[in-house]
Amino acid sequence: MKKYVSVRGLLAMVLLLASFKGISQTKEKAKSYWPNGARLVISVSMQFETGGQPEGAESPFSGNPLPKGQPDLAADSWFRYGGKEGIYRMLDLWKKYDIKVTSHVVGQAAVKYPEVAKAIADQGHEIAAHGMTWDNQWNKSYADELSFVKKGIDTVEAITGKRGVGYNSNWLRRGPNTLKVLQELGFLYHIDDLSHDEPFITLVNGKRFVVIPYTLRNNDIVNIEGKHWSPDQFLNQLKLEFDQLYKEGATKRRMMSVSFHDRIGGSPAVVNVMEQFIKYTKTKPGVVYMRKDDIARLVQNDPNTPIDNSEEQYNK
Amino acid sequence: MKKYVSVRGLLAMVLLLASFKGISQTKEKAKSYWPNGARLVISVSMQFETGGQPEGAESPFSGNPLPKGQPDLAADSWFRYGGKEGIYRMLDLWKKYDIKVTSHVVGQAAVKYPEVAKAIADQGHEIAAHGMTWDNQWNKSYADELSFVKKGIDTVEAITGKRGVGYNSNWLRRGPNTLKVLQELGFLYHIDDLSHDEPFITLVNGKRFVVIPYTLRNNDIVNIEGKHWSPDQFLNQLKLEFDQLYKEGATKRRMMSVSFHDRIGGSPAVVNVMEQFIKYTKTKPGVVYMRKDDIARLVQNDPNTPIDNSEEQYNK
Amino acid sequence: MKKYVSVRGLLAMVLLLASFKGISQTKEKAKSYWPNGARLVISVSMQFETGGQPEGAESPFSGNPLPKGQPDLAADSWFRYGGKEGIYRMLDLWKKYDIKVTSHVVGQAAVKYPEVAKAIADQGHEIAAHGMTWDNQWNKSYADELSFVKKGIDTVEAITGKRGVGYNSNWLRRGPNTLKVLQELGFLYHIDDLSHDEPFITLVNGKRFVVIPYTLRNNDIVNIEGKHWSPDQFLNQLKLEFDQLYKEGATKRRMMSVSFHDRIGGSPAVVNVMEQFIKYTKTKPGVVYMRKDDIARLVQNDPNTPIDNSEEQYNK
Amino acid sequence: MKKYVSVRGLLAMVLLLASFKGISQTKEKAKSYWPNGARLVISVSMQFETGGQPEGAESPFSGNPLPKGQPDLAADSWFRYGGKEGIYRMLDLWKKYDIKVTSHVVGQAAVKYPEVAKAIADQGHEIAAHGMTWDNQWNKSYADELSFVKKGIDTVEAITGKRGVGYNSNWLRRGPNTLKVLQELGFLYHIDDLSHDEPFITLVNGKRFVVIPYTLRNNDIVNIEGKHWSPDQFLNQLKLEFDQLYKEGATKRRMMSVSFHDRIGGSPAVVNVMEQFIKYTKTKPGVVYMRKDDIARLVQNDPNTPIDNSEEQYNK
Repeated sequence: MKKYVSVRGLLAMVLLLASFKGISQTKEKAKSYWPNGARLVISVSMQFETGGQPEGAESPFSGNPLPKGQPDLAADSWFRYGGKEGIYRMLDLWKKYDIKVTSHVVGQAAVKYPEVAKAIADQGHEIAAHGMTWDNQWNKSYADELSFVKKGIDTVEAITGKRGVGYNSNWLRRGPNTLKVLQELGFLYHIDDLSHDEPFITLVNGKRFVVIPYTLRNNDIVNIEGKHWSPDQFLNQLKLEFDQLYKEGATKRRMMSVSFHDRIGGSPAVVNVMEQFIKYTKTKPGVVYMRKDDIARLVQNDPNTPIDNSEEQYNK
Repeated sequence: MKKYVSVRGLLAMVLLLASFKGISQTKEKAKSYWPNGARLVISVSMQFETGGQPEGAESPFSGNPLPKGQPDLAADSWFRYGGKEGIYRMLDLWKKYDIKVTSHVVGQAAVKYPEVAKAIADQGHEIAAHGMTWDNQWNKSYADELSFVKKGIDTVEAITGKRGVGYNSNWLRRGPNTLKVLQELGFLYHIDDLSHDEPFITLVNGKRFVVIPYTLRNNDIVNIEGKHWSPDQFLNQLKLEFDQLYKEGATKRRMMSVSFHDRIGGSPAVVNVMEQFIKYTKTKPGVVYMRKDDIARLVQNDPNTPIDNSEEQYNK
Repeated sequence: MKKYVSVRGLLAMVLLLASFKGISQTKEKAKSYWPNGARLVISVSMQFETGGQPEGAESPFSGNPLPKGQPDLAADSWFRYGGKEGIYRMLDLWKKYDIKVTSHVVGQAAVKYPEVAKAIADQGHEIAAHGMTWDNQWNKSYADELSFVKKGIDTVEAITGKRGVGYNSNWLRRGPNTLKVLQELGFLYHIDDLSHDEPFITLVNGKRFVVIPYTLRNNDIVNIEGKHWSPDQFLNQLKLEFDQLYKEGATKRRMMSVSFHDRIGGSPAVVNVMEQFIKYTKTKPGVVYMRKDDIARLVQNDPNTPIDNSEEQYNK
Repeated sequence: MKKYVSVRGLLAMVLLLASFKGISQTKEKAKSYWPNGARLVISVSMQFETGGQPEGAESPFSGNPLPKGQPDLAADSWFRYGGKEGIYRMLDLWKKYDIKVTSHVVGQAAVKYPEVAKAIADQGHEIAAHGMTWDNQWNKSYADELSFVKKGIDTVEAITGKRGVGYNSNWLRRGPNTLKVLQELGFLYHIDDLSHDEPFITLVNGKRFVVIPYTLRNNDIVNIEGKHWSPDQFLNQLKLEFDQLYKEGATKRRMMSVSFHDRIGGSPAVVNVMEQFIKYTKTKPGVVYMRKDDIARLVQNDPNTPIDNSEEQYNK
């Protein structure tokens, strides 16, 4: 467990924040909701899942599934795009703007595409956990769930050298035992919660567990069917959300979550609009892009972090 | 019942209208369709429902429901956003522009989040009724429906100190007895009608009952699935609708209904575009934002208010 | 039958075309694809159907239908909007720009809202046929279909004084006998065909029958669910379609079909964008808005009108 | 087989590339990812399928299918648009900009509309194969699949004089034997793969087979239901995708696939936005539009072409 509390994350974060143009010297320092006077933290997810999908997994083809046992070669090739083009294209974008993201990596995806998983890790992004395969987690027994999660992080660690401390369940759907399982395995945070626009603490067995809220709004998954949508709509959504949260960041702690999936967000048009969005946010002082583990360590023991025990019935 | 006919509403309305920049002195006064020469009344709904939702209630997750009895923690957290962030963000917006809205509050939502219900009431917004829980109303017996509605207003009144005089059924779907039930309980108006762009009267047991038409068009509920939509489309819809109704307001009585739900309209991007919309409307003379109870009292005995007895068969 | 060949239509059309700003004097007269040098004919449909809908008819509520026999008062009010607001708002628009449209009127709609049907007729719009009720036509026997269609035109004629000569089947879905039925009843044209961007002739029992193609693209029905769409998208669609057809109109005969339904197209935002579209088209020379009966009479015996017998197997 | 290796394609390509404005003289020649210094190759598909569709084939009507055996005349007319208007409108566009496209032609479509198939061939576009009818291919035996594919190319060749060397399966859904079947029949490439943004090689029975990746993103098929979409969204998608791929083309080989279907992409508004897109791309140096057979011949033996054997299990 010790290695999870290494100072690497904190150090990276401090360096990152230090790169601000003197914000900490402004008058606003009188009250800062994030360290070093940051006004809005943006945290990007880049889920790497391709290769772990089960037969019939959601895709533009899944509305018309093939019979069980029949390989769906076209759908498979749609998924493969994530490993062949999508992740690499996004990595190039993050590199260009020196942004570190959080990548929830499915165990089987790393097994299938170890070079992709390693590339993510090697470029300094957070390797977080996303289960061993694409499988329902809410219906597992405590023991099975623990084994499933553990196998995922062990597998990904063996490949990337990084052990995840943050968790994302399949389709966000954890079960009543999930947080206890995560705590037992030494996880620091999970993201399967949509209830806040800032990180918070929830008590699990009486101990503090960090929740870094996720998003369905600023999430390329809205386009999983591949239709009724255009990337300019996504850009509009991102900018409108950002402008509001940035405004609110002047008087309270705010975090913006943005999420991509290898085979969707990695397409040329989505990366294009994400670059436009990054450029847009870079024109505003006090905007920081952070990995979720770094955020979690920041807020874990911060008295300013709200506590929300709405799920107390499951976590005690 | 007496308290429902208090002069508070009328007073507030008169004061509100008096704040117009001298419109009542213009030539248009020759024929006014609203008091004090107002040209277009906009009425905003801010439904507070979270906490009252049943298992499997409509959300971005409901297309793929979990088995009965299985808690859907991700979906629950999506709803919770309404009570944790959504309502407060909208309250800030209404305050900034001194707008009073109508909040149809589900009984169980107020029980679950009393501080939210109280905040709405304390800031001068109308607390209106929306049933005790999210439950079908169209299939209840007269007695059950009366009890259901009464329990809702009693519950919300006990928490907020305000007794609703306006009603909104679950998904607008009232039954043949609903208006009679509402009349028996002393309600002044309901909103579950989409047939007009202005308030009207319908006769229930021969007595005047006010209908303040609702909207599916200017309603964030169109985005309940969370996809195939972007908030800039909502802004376009609002502006296009406003421009037309404002134009028509020169020659007839027109009302624009806009509706939000805690967990959808309370998201940053929707509040952002709603603020843009408010600013846009504020540039036009004669635009008034009003609570629905205030509108209902205005029009209830006004001979200019049209009477529509299309549902006569149910209401006699 | 005689009255269908009255010169009223031809006269109106000639007068309409004569109002062009001297187009017939331009060089382009060398080859005209429409009389008097018109370059593009736009034909607007304004379907009047409300009041004739069956239980559970398609609406924003029909995705979640109530049990058979249960009145859906909210859905009913959504439909009622067409008769209370929608048609009148559209009539005002057509009047403002001196446009005559074609209104396919369901028999039961005219029975339920005779004042609406009469208003359409009295303002000089074409009263065309749309069946007696909203009912499948493709599954009727020849005799039943004939009776159904005849009852519809008789009913509407009794109310409006106008006998339809053009036909639109429920959801465009005619059966193999429909054209023969229409011919027997003296109809001049039908619109239930999407195969061309110009009127054409098809032979029914060896005689010429006019087809005025309809549209699903420039049709407000795309928004019948009330979501995943904004009226500015409709305006974009209309303009993009117009620009292309107008360009093509220089070298071949082109017609643009636009369609509205009482309760959808009659909403403020759609009328707003339609007015913007009309203004846009009015800036181009040679654009004529025509009723479909006038178009049908124009092209019926014109040797330039193409003949398409793709459905020969049914029509002989 | 000999005729497939004729120099016509290579010649055309060389001539096409030679028309570039001196790009090959720039410094970038140091490293070219395409011959003659081209920076981005765009390949347009124009699928000709109408006439080959089975009963109930996907259309705006298929959400509400008629009973088996009942002709759906409205849906049929929607399809017919492709043969009557759509293909011709697109042919005019390609001619205007001197673009050669690839047309995957269903055998039955060519039988039904030989004049359309011939027009495509006569204007210099690639006639490629798309099966004999609209039929599932993934569930056929090797022998049946071979016969199905062969009948398609034989039929289309008999009508157009051109024998397809490229293949597109129904809904992209090939089966495990498809590539072996194609190889046996002498095909050069297939397009039913979405995994790359550039052509690649896959080994079939140890021999090189070209894959020219297709697209679901830049594909008019997203609008097959005819709603929740407007052509300006398509234009946005195309431009955003183009800008990104063009940028990437400076440092790696990139190809952009765009796809149209007779009855969808052939509508006025879509052709309008495609013309806008073509004009937009023509402002950038190094953009080349190419037929897929020409691309396949270019890359087939080029050592720069990547090899991807992800489907090795099926192809050996």
